[in-house]
Amino acid sequence: LAGRVAHLGTTVFSEFSALALKHGAMNLGQGFPDFDGPEPVKEAARKAITDGVNQYAPSTGLRDLRVAIAEHGARFHGHTGIDPDTMVTVTSGATEAILCVMLGLVDPGDEVVAFEPFYDSYDANIGFIGAKARYVPLRPPDASHTTWWFDRDEVRAAFGPRTRLLILNTPHNPTGKVFTREELEFLGELCAEHDVRVLSDEVYEHIVFSPARHVRPATVPSLTDRTVSVSSGGKSFSLTGWKIGWIIAPPALRDAVQRAHQFVTFATASPLQAAMAAALRMPDAYFQELSASYLAKRERLLSGLAEAGLKAYVPEGSYFIITDISGRGFADDVAFCRHLVTEVGVAAIPPSVFYGPEHKSLGQGMARFAFCKTEAVLDEAVRRLKVGL
Amino acid sequence: LAGRVAHLGTTVFSEFSALALKHGAMNLGQGFPDFDGPEPVKEAARKAITDGVNQYAPSTGLRDLRVAIAEHGARFHGHTGIDPDTMVTVTSGATEAILCVMLGLVDPGDEVVAFEPFYDSYDANIGFIGAKARYVPLRPPDASHTTWWFDRDEVRAAFGPRTRLLILNTPHNPTGKVFTREELEFLGELCAEHDVRVLSDEVYEHIVFSPARHVRPATVPSLTDRTVSVSSGGKSFSLTGWKIGWIIAPPALRDAVQRAHQFVTFATASPLQAAMAAALRMPDAYFQELSASYLAKRERLLSGLAEAGLKAYVPEGSYFIITDISGRGFADDVAFCRHLVTEVGVAAIPPSVFYGPEHKSLGQGMARFAFCKTEAVLDEAVRRLKVGL
Ligand SMILES: CSCCC(=O)C(=O)O
Ligand SMILES: CSCCC(=O)C(=O)O
Repeated sequence: LAGRVAHLGTTVFSEFSALALKHGAMNLGQGFPDFDGPEPVKEAARKAITDGVNQYAPSTGLRDLRVAIAEHGARFHGHTGIDPDTMVTVTSGATEAILCVMLGLVDPGDEVVAFEPFYDSYDANIGFIGAKARYVPLRPPDASHTTWWFDRDEVRAAFGPRTRLLILNTPHNPTGKVFTREELEFLGELCAEHDVRVLSDEVYEHIVFSPARHVRPATVPSLTDRTVSVSSGGKSFSLTGWKIGWIIAPPALRDAVQRAHQFVTFATASPLQAAMAAALRMPDAYFQELSASYLAKRERLLSGLAEAGLKAYVPEGSYFIITDISGRGFADDVAFCRHLVTEVGVAAIPPSVFYGPEHKSLGQGMARFAFCKTEAVLDEAVRRLKVGL
Repeated sequence: LAGRVAHLGTTVFSEFSALALKHGAMNLGQGFPDFDGPEPVKEAARKAITDGVNQYAPSTGLRDLRVAIAEHGARFHGHTGIDPDTMVTVTSGATEAILCVMLGLVDPGDEVVAFEPFYDSYDANIGFIGAKARYVPLRPPDASHTTWWFDRDEVRAAFGPRTRLLILNTPHNPTGKVFTREELEFLGELCAEHDVRVLSDEVYEHIVFSPARHVRPATVPSLTDRTVSVSSGGKSFSLTGWKIGWIIAPPALRDAVQRAHQFVTFATASPLQAAMAAALRMPDAYFQELSASYLAKRERLLSGLAEAGLKAYVPEGSYFIITDISGRGFADDVAFCRHLVTEVGVAAIPPSVFYGPEHKSLGQGMARFAFCKTEAVLDEAVRRLKVGL
């Protein structure tokens, strides 16, 4: 066992999905839809397989998909000027993209700033490359904040001479926070001041609830030249198992990421790339219906959680809801979630794994529920919570 | 740009595939078939997509594929006792598998021994993890050796107190060498003596020409407990673009690799995994026909190269042929291959990129031709070589 993996356990997603299966629990843990992706996209994949799109794609990705990624960025996020030939690389999901950004941009000993709670691969990847994490906690909504927020002085204090990368995630997993343009402008100025690059993980870009709006960090002027935008098709098209992700970045940054990518996976499943191009070209109505349907699911689970007596923070985006489980007599969030999956029959994710050691206690009073599930599953989960909690 | 990617260029495969396209050359460079995979496997993928196998697979891989991998190892390589639950992880191609093995098993500062010429990702990955490469050159057939061979003293000298991993690749790309049981036993003893683990890259396991036979290193007793076997479906099923690979290893080693894998790509395309299980269960006749058809292609290209006056080393396995281009008045292999692709209309790969600095000159007198191509393409390539060389 190498030192860099010695401290890593099984991901919490694998652990709780396995527990859910074992105990017949309603799985509101791992974030995958329990419904299928759009038929035209599936048909495009079948056709690509039939048509023989079955050999290596270029390492940067099928050109048609790179073109579709560029068009999609302009259509939905005002992200214009994306050159598909010099600014895009297709990866095996956003997870691979994130590792390649770090491999390509961050040296051992450099520092990476990120917000807590964080998607767990960030922390593992920072360890893989021998860098040092500096975490800044997001704070839950309170009397003076209607959404999750951060203390600007805490962010400023996290930046220093060795800071090389800031990781953003908007819409944010697991809090559902959608970063505002003003917040991004503040962060952009800080990054400009310290000459820091930005990894912007936007895999929930199409799951945003009005009045919140997704602002792509790369469209904020101070961030444009320094940002690698990462996304994937998994969440936007309910096809999490296809593992088609991508990065968009200015040519010099894309070049650095591509150098890593070619020796991480080299290329990504060709027929699914072809289909993802069709997906990104779906009409506006598809994307409107997606977020409308998730809004309905959010409301359904929010009411259910309220009925079950669980205090929830309303997410502005993503398909996750953080609940406050403090004061319920459990040692921590892991104990609560273990009880929930084995005794109550509902799987949720304990968020303390998304915190570094310093702020872990913040996560220990919370549990994360996913609502990317059919109404029947959401309703049955709520029924069990009402009975069992 | 991080230091670990600063010295990396575009892979030679991408470079020469792009040149082939630009110059309308017959592409005998990058190793991908210009014919399609088996219809039943493609049908299995279409069915999986239709049936909704479209969400995250378990990070270790779909269980049915893990079972098929275990059965296939026993059926073809006498590799019995593979437990699908504790000894197999599915990856996004062998390329990802190789990185995960290094991330999981090798610490910064450790040494990795490998043979030259090597598959280029090995060297890049050794750099990614901050380890040090110790290369031992394979020597071409000569008066006293009928196949590519290595000097046992040179291998012994490469092992030392910091050696953590030996990389084997059999059948070997680009030389076509198939390691014998006796050679593997020698290497196994050396590894046992120095407590070294083995990464065995066997992606050409089904492309072997009698009298050579593929011996899976993990079936050699001294190697069984220390070997991570890596393979993929790309070459065995002419579906290089699907990027389904896997590792097989004793539980403790598989655990180390899995810890890395979950934070490199997490999981791999679910519907293509389902189809790969069907592929691995194809009847024996499929695999016999595959190697028979590659034998015919090998003979066809070997005769053509001879007619064109190029001295070739007969490969025992893989779909590559190394030719001797020394004494033709080119500065090196790169100059020769550039000339070939632009002026003669045939793409080949210059092997010097598969050598470290010390032995680069060995590669500079060679060129690699792939024969995973239709007869029409092989014939046209030969015609051009005869006219243009
Ligand atoms: C890669 S499994 C994790 C899925 C997910 O994004 C989540 O549940 O947070
Ligand atoms: C991943 S592209 C390289 C394909 C191949 O194995 C080769 O040409 O050697």
